[in-house]
Amino acid sequence: MIDFFRAPIPGSESNPVVRAIDWLLRGTSQVVFQSNWLTGLLILVGIGINSRIYLVAAVVGIVVSTGTGLLLRMDRGLVDAGLLGFNGCLLGIGINAYMSANFTAGQWPDWKLYVYIIGGAAMTTVVFSAIGSLLGSRMVPALTAPFVFCAWMFIFATMKFGALHPGPLLAGSIPKPTGLHAAYTGKTWFEGTFRGVAEIFFQDNWLSGIVIAGAIAINSRISAIMGVCGALAGVAVAMVYGADEGLIRLGLFGFNASLTAMALGGFFIVLNIRGLLYAAFGTLITVWVWATLNVWLSPIGMPTFTSAFVIVGWFFIIAKAGFMGVTPVAPADATYPEDNYRRWRAGTLAAGR
Amino acid sequence: MIDFFRAPIPGSESNPVVRAIDWLLRGTSQVVFQSNWLTGLLILVGIGINSRIYLVAAVVGIVVSTGTGLLLRMDRGLVDAGLLGFNGCLLGIGINAYMSANFTAGQWPDWKLYVYIIGGAAMTTVVFSAIGSLLGSRMVPALTAPFVFCAWMFIFATMKFGALHPGPLLAGSIPKPTGLHAAYTGKTWFEGTFRGVAEIFFQDNWLSGIVIAGAIAINSRISAIMGVCGALAGVAVAMVYGADEGLIRLGLFGFNASLTAMALGGFFIVLNIRGLLYAAFGTLITVWVWATLNVWLSPIGMPTFTSAFVIVGWFFIIAKAGFMGVTPVAPADATYPEDNYRRWRAGTLAAGR
Amino acid sequence: MIDFFRAPIPGSESNPVVRAIDWLLRGTSQVVFQSNWLTGLLILVGIGINSRIYLVAAVVGIVVSTGTGLLLRMDRGLVDAGLLGFNGCLLGIGINAYMSANFTAGQWPDWKLYVYIIGGAAMTTVVFSAIGSLLGSRMVPALTAPFVFCAWMFIFATMKFGALHPGPLLAGSIPKPTGLHAAYTGKTWFEGTFRGVAEIFFQDNWLSGIVIAGAIAINSRISAIMGVCGALAGVAVAMVYGADEGLIRLGLFGFNASLTAMALGGFFIVLNIRGLLYAAFGTLITVWVWATLNVWLSPIGMPTFTSAFVIVGWFFIIAKAGFMGVTPVAPADATYPEDNYRRWRAGTLAAGR
Repeated sequence: MIDFFRAPIPGSESNPVVRAIDWLLRGTSQVVFQSNWLTGLLILVGIGINSRIYLVAAVVGIVVSTGTGLLLRMDRGLVDAGLLGFNGCLLGIGINAYMSANFTAGQWPDWKLYVYIIGGAAMTTVVFSAIGSLLGSRMVPALTAPFVFCAWMFIFATMKFGALHPGPLLAGSIPKPTGLHAAYTGKTWFEGTFRGVAEIFFQDNWLSGIVIAGAIAINSRISAIMGVCGALAGVAVAMVYGADEGLIRLGLFGFNASLTAMALGGFFIVLNIRGLLYAAFGTLITVWVWATLNVWLSPIGMPTFTSAFVIVGWFFIIAKAGFMGVTPVAPADATYPEDNYRRWRAGTLAAGR
Repeated sequence: MIDFFRAPIPGSESNPVVRAIDWLLRGTSQVVFQSNWLTGLLILVGIGINSRIYLVAAVVGIVVSTGTGLLLRMDRGLVDAGLLGFNGCLLGIGINAYMSANFTAGQWPDWKLYVYIIGGAAMTTVVFSAIGSLLGSRMVPALTAPFVFCAWMFIFATMKFGALHPGPLLAGSIPKPTGLHAAYTGKTWFEGTFRGVAEIFFQDNWLSGIVIAGAIAINSRISAIMGVCGALAGVAVAMVYGADEGLIRLGLFGFNASLTAMALGGFFIVLNIRGLLYAAFGTLITVWVWATLNVWLSPIGMPTFTSAFVIVGWFFIIAKAGFMGVTPVAPADATYPEDNYRRWRAGTLAAGR
Repeated sequence: MIDFFRAPIPGSESNPVVRAIDWLLRGTSQVVFQSNWLTGLLILVGIGINSRIYLVAAVVGIVVSTGTGLLLRMDRGLVDAGLLGFNGCLLGIGINAYMSANFTAGQWPDWKLYVYIIGGAAMTTVVFSAIGSLLGSRMVPALTAPFVFCAWMFIFATMKFGALHPGPLLAGSIPKPTGLHAAYTGKTWFEGTFRGVAEIFFQDNWLSGIVIAGAIAINSRISAIMGVCGALAGVAVAMVYGADEGLIRLGLFGFNASLTAMALGGFFIVLNIRGLLYAAFGTLITVWVWATLNVWLSPIGMPTFTSAFVIVGWFFIIAKAGFMGVTPVAPADATYPEDNYRRWRAGTLAAGR
């Protein structure tokens, strides 16, 4: 049954419109390492219940980044797997959100900002191809690096252009040690965790987070558990180390950790005992590294996006070459955690080193 | 006739002084992707009409970076092609200019600053060799990255040394959204474009820009058109997005875009229809990325040099591996746009992927 | 006789406790490119005479980073060579020192900071493996990059966590040109040089520096001379360029230069005439690059650690591929300068290019 949603939407072979819808939905699901059009559809619903504006931005981003790949004649296998869509999706929402007067609700971009978003989304495909050329032969995936690099390449510049209006969150300052913080409550735990999942897509809404987690669970329960536990771990670590309550409740300590947990927890590394410890360690590090990148960008007041996940994820995945104790999955061969594990037990998983 | 100026200066084989002059002139022309000693000579004239000080700095830079390569026994083919000179040329002028009380006219360096410039120019050859080792096997050129890295490695440090005196442009501040700007006029268009070409060599002088564009046209009309149109595109995009009039008129939005247009417009990518669109897209992105790098360096008040061109150029050239829609030229096989195109049509161009 | 201390401690083969002690001492000596357990022991003494707190931090760091490698089943040859220990050693002391109210004497970490240090030390092993995967096939060593990256990934974050208390040296500001400085004296020369050697291990103590230099001399007189002369060169260059007297006397201009001099002066490059010039040039550049990195990190007020050495060292070692004038030693084949030179003269040194 579930394989129906993993396969291309019926008619994709013959009807280009159906195929395009498949790319759109599959591309959305690839942000969270799933290849399942129903998962993608439900994630878009999760975004839409928070903001129709961001839903449109996500769609525009995916259409542009995938279209750029077609125009430049990239390998059709990558396109059909939705791999050209997920960075464009994040770039569309990300630029839109930080350029809105209200981050949570969003604001319709004017045409100049739309041109900007389209340029950024198209650029993610160039960066995706470049990273593939540099790291692909080592069986290292691009992760969301194309999105992060392009978002940075575009959003810093908004300070220099009078026709663009950076949102209120983009304000630089010299970092100072953090002081006292409000008391942590059950709300900090709950909202921090599910907004953490939602913030992967820039949605400041715990209900969106629950819908997105559910959408992931349809394709892989392990990924969903990893995603939620990763965000939860972000909250827990931030609390132990006395981080600002408001930042935790917004989910900002969670979204990078959630991605690392999903990536290392069964998808790119087989989820045996050592693999689980490896993923847990990477998730922990991601929480700290997010804070570090936040401080690094503080003087120019720019967002980290998912850079903490990219940096930690890359180090942990590239390091696999030297670690006989963990079992990597070749990116091109990775399906979903349950299946990767099953094939490893059966001895049919191709070597990922 | 023109081939006379492309070939080594007569006597280069037998007379080391003539050979050295060929390296000097050819190295200058390589900044703008030409291998033509007359082009190099005219560019030096273009610099000299603005400032004899910078002319000397350019010569010192080329002599030192090329001499370092000879001392360390680099491949003679690279030396003879002038490829060890162009980064030293830019470093010499660049450090001199930002350390001058008056950027436009320049100021003679004292001996401590000369030692500094010599160290930086020699270092460009080390970085050139290192980048060649890392990227050469992928048929990716170093572009002006050796100059950018070395200029950064040296100029930030001037804040720490009382015996060096950073010029007035080196002043850090927290970036703020830009406000209103003076009205754009015909002067903004004209000066922004030709100073843009001149700023490739740090010359704040539109006449120098015209001479340099003419020098390029002698060897390749396509390159000259690309260089001028790239700078012009920088002005246009900056205007649409409401950038500061003074910065545009100084050519600062143009010089990186001009380099990207020349590099992608026929030199490293064949100039067919898709190649032209690819170059245009890269040029557009470069304008935004220049602004982004400017904001990124704002807290320490340091210049971007040609880093926007290097970043965008590298992404677009490395990405060629995955794009069947564009036709890359192997760096070692690239001559000039017209010839690259002709050989592609004739089917005699070696594969650049 | 000296070979007794270069070989594993007697009993290492049969007794795991002895083997662990060998890893600990050898790992310490690898910070300064030696593989000699007596050298390591004396360096620990040099640290201990300044601060027992830092001695403990060094031991904790080595145990954790080496233990992580065992758990993840890294190549035993790397473990036995002490190569998993040296980055953990530096990370342990480095984080502890910058989080202490008094940098010189140190302060016992509370459990939260210990967890933090343990996480960082474990992470150095992940980064070490990742760098090995990326650069190893080019015969380029990781140097102290795993320590630098991890120290940065962890220490910036302390600004965001109320339960951690950044020391007084971690304070951001916009960099300004340096002004007048106190007069240089014999003390500046002497303390700047030997504290420079000691600051490799974060010890603000000239006596520690002398002990460490002596410990190196036991295994290689050339390395010891290079280390001391490198630090001395740092002092000299900083004086010529008018740097702040206090910073020079603290040894801050010396410790990166000292490492570069040891790395290029006979260890990774054969110490013939051209090799000596190459090492001298790299050492000079390192002094300037340290100042540059200091300015770069100034707005967030974070330390450079040994990043200047890593950047310059990497450029010079990677560049070897194109320089026929210098004779590189393959990292896996490098023993100590005297032996590298002897084998080069005898024609038995494996090609390092």
